[in-house]
Amino acid sequence: MKLKSSHSHGVVVAILQVIFFVLFIIFAKYHPDADARHNPLVNGTQLEKKLSKYHSGDDWGHSKLYPMFQDVHVMIFIGFGFLMTFLKRYGFSSVGVNFLVAATCLQWALLVNGFFHLHYNTIIIDLNALLAADFTAAAVLISFGAVLGKTTPTQLIMMAMIEIPVFVINEVIGRQYLGAIDMGDSMFVHAFGAYFGLAVSFALYRDDHSTEKEGSSYRSDLFAMIGTVFLWLYWPSFNSGAAPGDDQHRAVINTYIALCSCTLMTFALSSLVDKNKRFNMVHIQNSTLAGGVAVGTAADLMIQPWGAMLIGMLAATISVLGYAYITPFLASRLRIHDTCGVHNLHGMPALLAGIVGCVAAAFASEDTYGPSLYEIFPKRAPAEGSEDLSRLRANLTDLDAGPGYSAGGQAGNQILALIITLVIAIIGGVLTGFLLRLEIWGRLRTDDLYEDEKYWIIEEEEEEHQMSSVHIPMTSPADNGTSK
Amino acid sequence: MKLKSSHSHGVVVAILQVIFFVLFIIFAKYHPDADARHNPLVNGTQLEKKLSKYHSGDDWGHSKLYPMFQDVHVMIFIGFGFLMTFLKRYGFSSVGVNFLVAATCLQWALLVNGFFHLHYNTIIIDLNALLAADFTAAAVLISFGAVLGKTTPTQLIMMAMIEIPVFVINEVIGRQYLGAIDMGDSMFVHAFGAYFGLAVSFALYRDDHSTEKEGSSYRSDLFAMIGTVFLWLYWPSFNSGAAPGDDQHRAVINTYIALCSCTLMTFALSSLVDKNKRFNMVHIQNSTLAGGVAVGTAADLMIQPWGAMLIGMLAATISVLGYAYITPFLASRLRIHDTCGVHNLHGMPALLAGIVGCVAAAFASEDTYGPSLYEIFPKRAPAEGSEDLSRLRANLTDLDAGPGYSAGGQAGNQILALIITLVIAIIGGVLTGFLLRLEIWGRLRTDDLYEDEKYWIIEEEEEEHQMSSVHIPMTSPADNGTSK
Amino acid sequence: MKLKSSHSHGVVVAILQVIFFVLFIIFAKYHPDADARHNPLVNGTQLEKKLSKYHSGDDWGHSKLYPMFQDVHVMIFIGFGFLMTFLKRYGFSSVGVNFLVAATCLQWALLVNGFFHLHYNTIIIDLNALLAADFTAAAVLISFGAVLGKTTPTQLIMMAMIEIPVFVINEVIGRQYLGAIDMGDSMFVHAFGAYFGLAVSFALYRDDHSTEKEGSSYRSDLFAMIGTVFLWLYWPSFNSGAAPGDDQHRAVINTYIALCSCTLMTFALSSLVDKNKRFNMVHIQNSTLAGGVAVGTAADLMIQPWGAMLIGMLAATISVLGYAYITPFLASRLRIHDTCGVHNLHGMPALLAGIVGCVAAAFASEDTYGPSLYEIFPKRAPAEGSEDLSRLRANLTDLDAGPGYSAGGQAGNQILALIITLVIAIIGGVLTGFLLRLEIWGRLRTDDLYEDEKYWIIEEEEEEHQMSSVHIPMTSPADNGTSK
Repeated sequence: MKLKSSHSHGVVVAILQVIFFVLFIIFAKYHPDADARHNPLVNGTQLEKKLSKYHSGDDWGHSKLYPMFQDVHVMIFIGFGFLMTFLKRYGFSSVGVNFLVAATCLQWALLVNGFFHLHYNTIIIDLNALLAADFTAAAVLISFGAVLGKTTPTQLIMMAMIEIPVFVINEVIGRQYLGAIDMGDSMFVHAFGAYFGLAVSFALYRDDHSTEKEGSSYRSDLFAMIGTVFLWLYWPSFNSGAAPGDDQHRAVINTYIALCSCTLMTFALSSLVDKNKRFNMVHIQNSTLAGGVAVGTAADLMIQPWGAMLIGMLAATISVLGYAYITPFLASRLRIHDTCGVHNLHGMPALLAGIVGCVAAAFASEDTYGPSLYEIFPKRAPAEGSEDLSRLRANLTDLDAGPGYSAGGQAGNQILALIITLVIAIIGGVLTGFLLRLEIWGRLRTDDLYEDEKYWIIEEEEEEHQMSSVHIPMTSPADNGTSK
Repeated sequence: MKLKSSHSHGVVVAILQVIFFVLFIIFAKYHPDADARHNPLVNGTQLEKKLSKYHSGDDWGHSKLYPMFQDVHVMIFIGFGFLMTFLKRYGFSSVGVNFLVAATCLQWALLVNGFFHLHYNTIIIDLNALLAADFTAAAVLISFGAVLGKTTPTQLIMMAMIEIPVFVINEVIGRQYLGAIDMGDSMFVHAFGAYFGLAVSFALYRDDHSTEKEGSSYRSDLFAMIGTVFLWLYWPSFNSGAAPGDDQHRAVINTYIALCSCTLMTFALSSLVDKNKRFNMVHIQNSTLAGGVAVGTAADLMIQPWGAMLIGMLAATISVLGYAYITPFLASRLRIHDTCGVHNLHGMPALLAGIVGCVAAAFASEDTYGPSLYEIFPKRAPAEGSEDLSRLRANLTDLDAGPGYSAGGQAGNQILALIITLVIAIIGGVLTGFLLRLEIWGRLRTDDLYEDEKYWIIEEEEEEHQMSSVHIPMTSPADNGTSK
Repeated sequence: MKLKSSHSHGVVVAILQVIFFVLFIIFAKYHPDADARHNPLVNGTQLEKKLSKYHSGDDWGHSKLYPMFQDVHVMIFIGFGFLMTFLKRYGFSSVGVNFLVAATCLQWALLVNGFFHLHYNTIIIDLNALLAADFTAAAVLISFGAVLGKTTPTQLIMMAMIEIPVFVINEVIGRQYLGAIDMGDSMFVHAFGAYFGLAVSFALYRDDHSTEKEGSSYRSDLFAMIGTVFLWLYWPSFNSGAAPGDDQHRAVINTYIALCSCTLMTFALSSLVDKNKRFNMVHIQNSTLAGGVAVGTAADLMIQPWGAMLIGMLAATISVLGYAYITPFLASRLRIHDTCGVHNLHGMPALLAGIVGCVAAAFASEDTYGPSLYEIFPKRAPAEGSEDLSRLRANLTDLDAGPGYSAGGQAGNQILALIITLVIAIIGGVLTGFLLRLEIWGRLRTDDLYEDEKYWIIEEEEEEHQMSSVHIPMTSPADNGTSK
């Protein structure tokens, strides 16, 4: 009986939730900004408050961040969820299991991020922490894309539980120790998530991975476009949400431009690589987004509008050619099967992002950035007591001293952070993958690959309106014939 | 001829719109914030204005509320609309009639809310009023869920017209007279809407309510997930939109956490109640949202992150078990048929919310809240002339005097507001339901239950790409035949 | 072989992207608000910055505009894209080619708008410019609706390239020279886009335009509702995004009310024009939005809530009657075929908007608007040296002198701007249409009208779950059997 489950994913999820609950009791507290005791409202606002139940009220710490946070939130659940519904028989799992995994990641990321930034043994929860949790979830969902349709829910949940601590360790090394900057998280989220997922996929490789269910249908491709377009639209919020002031404005502009140029090049190349000059939905759904990834690391830097445009064009080129030539090669030669092509959407464009970040850092100077150079690259700030620091503090009294890296030093650390990310992601992913092969997490039979019926109750009766006409011959059966 | 309509819903809707128009002429005015005469722009902004046609301009009263307002707006029209598209032959009505009913409610709610808060015989329209109208519409759309597929459009419109005044009366009693707090409107919107709708459904009970059309299809379930996920994402805006300052921040955090924990428990229990351990789309579409309802009343209180998490876990448990065991019981024993299961998504979780609100109020003290205690619970503010008030006014010079309720008194009023809500909703709903049985509003035949063809022009020809490979006789070709 | 393409749209798109790139290198620069050198952060914020990687940061110029910008962005790509998916065999092209055309327009509009407002031979890019590009794209996408399914991608791209400069010229004439106001761009975007597109359609007229593929299916109509509802929800942001201060608040209120009343009248009339009193999805998808168009020009004026409501009711009436009676007339008598009915959604409601704007301008006085009258209508500001100006400058020291138009003069210019818009749009559209008939851009065969297969790779295999009950033997019939 194929539906018998040798283990219960329900129990695993319930136990995890109880563990999260216990850890929250012990560690989690509201940020003072969200704590009633620390915020006696100032005079005058009470009156306003009384005027209306629905009252926009007083400012709180990060209220301006909220709309961008919601954009990112939509990307995680609608964007990633629907993007993966392209598989014709795996829609419930794509949007549903994405929902489960993401909600797991959010809680676990709040805890793990918190453990690495404890304040008096307390994890502080505020809107920034919620947003950081969403970013962390993105890495796991990217990895999910590489193994889509080939794992049990329990395997995915376990992957998330392992991936998140590895993710946070890598980010702390790169961002904190190396001082690498990565505004849109292209290295720390996209490169990490993609190569971790590809490494897991390598470890889980099976010869029967390509079945006829691994394809899309006309309607499932339209559902996937919901995901694509929302990701595309809100990507400027992803790349700029964490940026301050004018950096945020610049990150919005650069991402918008890179996505536009990437979209045109994707359509152009998609048509050019097809012998009949037709567009390929796989490219449109994925490669149009590569520009957002590729511009991520340098999104807040002074790369100029044309720089952003060039990055988008290159990203599309890499990505479409990747789908056409590299993905088949990876599957057949390297035994790395990549269901969603995350290597083309996230992996290679993130490598490009890392390189762009390095180049942009190498050319960054006070001429172009003014004193804000030392705020964008804190490791470049001059050492305490230096003349330079005194000069700068004339304008920026609060400027912190730093190790005084040169432009070259910063650029080197950018590349180092990228390499370390790749190494940690690949090793972490392979080890995780082998762990996921344990019988205890279950294993799909060939028939269950890319198939919802194993884990979802599917209504068998299908009497829709769209069925009403199935006897009518097609207008031009010949046409349909020729397209096959 | 089954399509003949014995009455004209078009005429009813047109007449209503004209009535709204006349009432708007007599009563509605812009809030001063939105009135050109009251807002000479300050110096300096003109120049900026000239610089660009597209100019973000000066602040207006509640401009920070706007993004949260839009989130709630999306919940009402996309969220509720698509959530109900799960029925396989009722998609047009779900999203379309939801659209009609919601647009009716917004206008009627602006008027009715306004009548209860007249200023010099004038209804003041501002963004707060628009948001309040959206909240009011939510109550009606929840009731709609209970009777989905079983009413004529005219019956629904009449239900909305009656429900809204009853809703406002109940809210005024609870919020104004009893001083009950309910930030996310779990009692005043969710409990009220659910029990009103269930009472209507009871009064409209018919033995033939379960037909084979009362089910979902694979694609209709995917459409429904669009609704679910947008509701889930924007629920923090629903629960916090009306809150001031740090309360808003706290409401966002609590709702986010409650929804996450609720999602995991929903998946866990959905699998555990199935004999084959499979997930059930009904639960995923609905019970994942119960955490947002259950945390609503206390969303802005100091319930702590772990408290929010616990509430989410309990809500999921109630909701999934409700779908599995209580809904069948209500239908078979109490003659209450609940198409969408609003009792499990809105009803019971809202009861939990009311109880949580009561408990949180009972434990609320100056220790935890500081002086903002008296702003959150205005009825707890000390009486004029008391020593306490003088002490507090040292910090908060504008603090209003109040009746000086104890924590217990406030807690008692919370429960009282919940009970009154239930009583008014159930009596109001039953009476409304019997009124809706009048022949004048029309009545569906068995064949028209959960069926779009009665009220929508359906294209008969269905030659989609996804059809290209089918050749099969329909389950009930006769039905489809008549519609052509 | 029908799929052979005599020309390569891929090459055209790639060449265009390279041209954009070169022009960006030469002309485009960041706005100072987005330039690192011009924005040394103020004291105190650095500390905050260090506190968290995810930090909402300091204000930048137009950060409050960002949520409204994103709403408009969603309208362009999700709204227009999905609205057009109603055609049953043209979903990929609707949402996909909309994506391509819109991304082309955004880049081209940044350039062309910039050329008309050069600063020292430089095009300044900031969030306002991005929003203006989105508005410009809207005009092209409206024109797209008129010719949907009847052009090659290359024809569309060429149309966009020509339409945008014509659009900008017309807007400069109307807004700058005539001083016509049009907050929601009903004249400059909606009227222009609609009549330009209809004129193109006239020039491209073909006798075989009506095939049986020019229709919807049950599911494609549901996809279209995603577009409709998002357009409806975010329309207040479209009409108010460019407005300052209280004007913005008023534009939100007026648009919200006009859309609500328009929705009720659309449902009422849709049912009343059908012999069986059924609703027609064509009306629901389109005419519900006409209120947003019709209120656009005067959205920020003191038209009063009842005025907005009346405009919505009139717009629905025009629009539904247009679908029922005028569209067939245009196609059969005037040889203007209008696939999406843009004449009913954008064209006629925009004429109404222009007339409303004229009437509202005729009645605008200092009594109603206070001194802000001269900020809303800059051409009405008194001349330099006049007594009036001195009086006004007592309150508004920065008020610019103007030509001192009377109310009648302003009203006249409003109508003049509308007429010029129509003339330029129609002549420009006809000329563009004849240009598009050149063989070089390709031409669709009858079989390829409203058909994705010509330009998209369509998966042939269609074994979805929704197919599973149709009795076709499954890949693994045993499996499916056991799950039922």
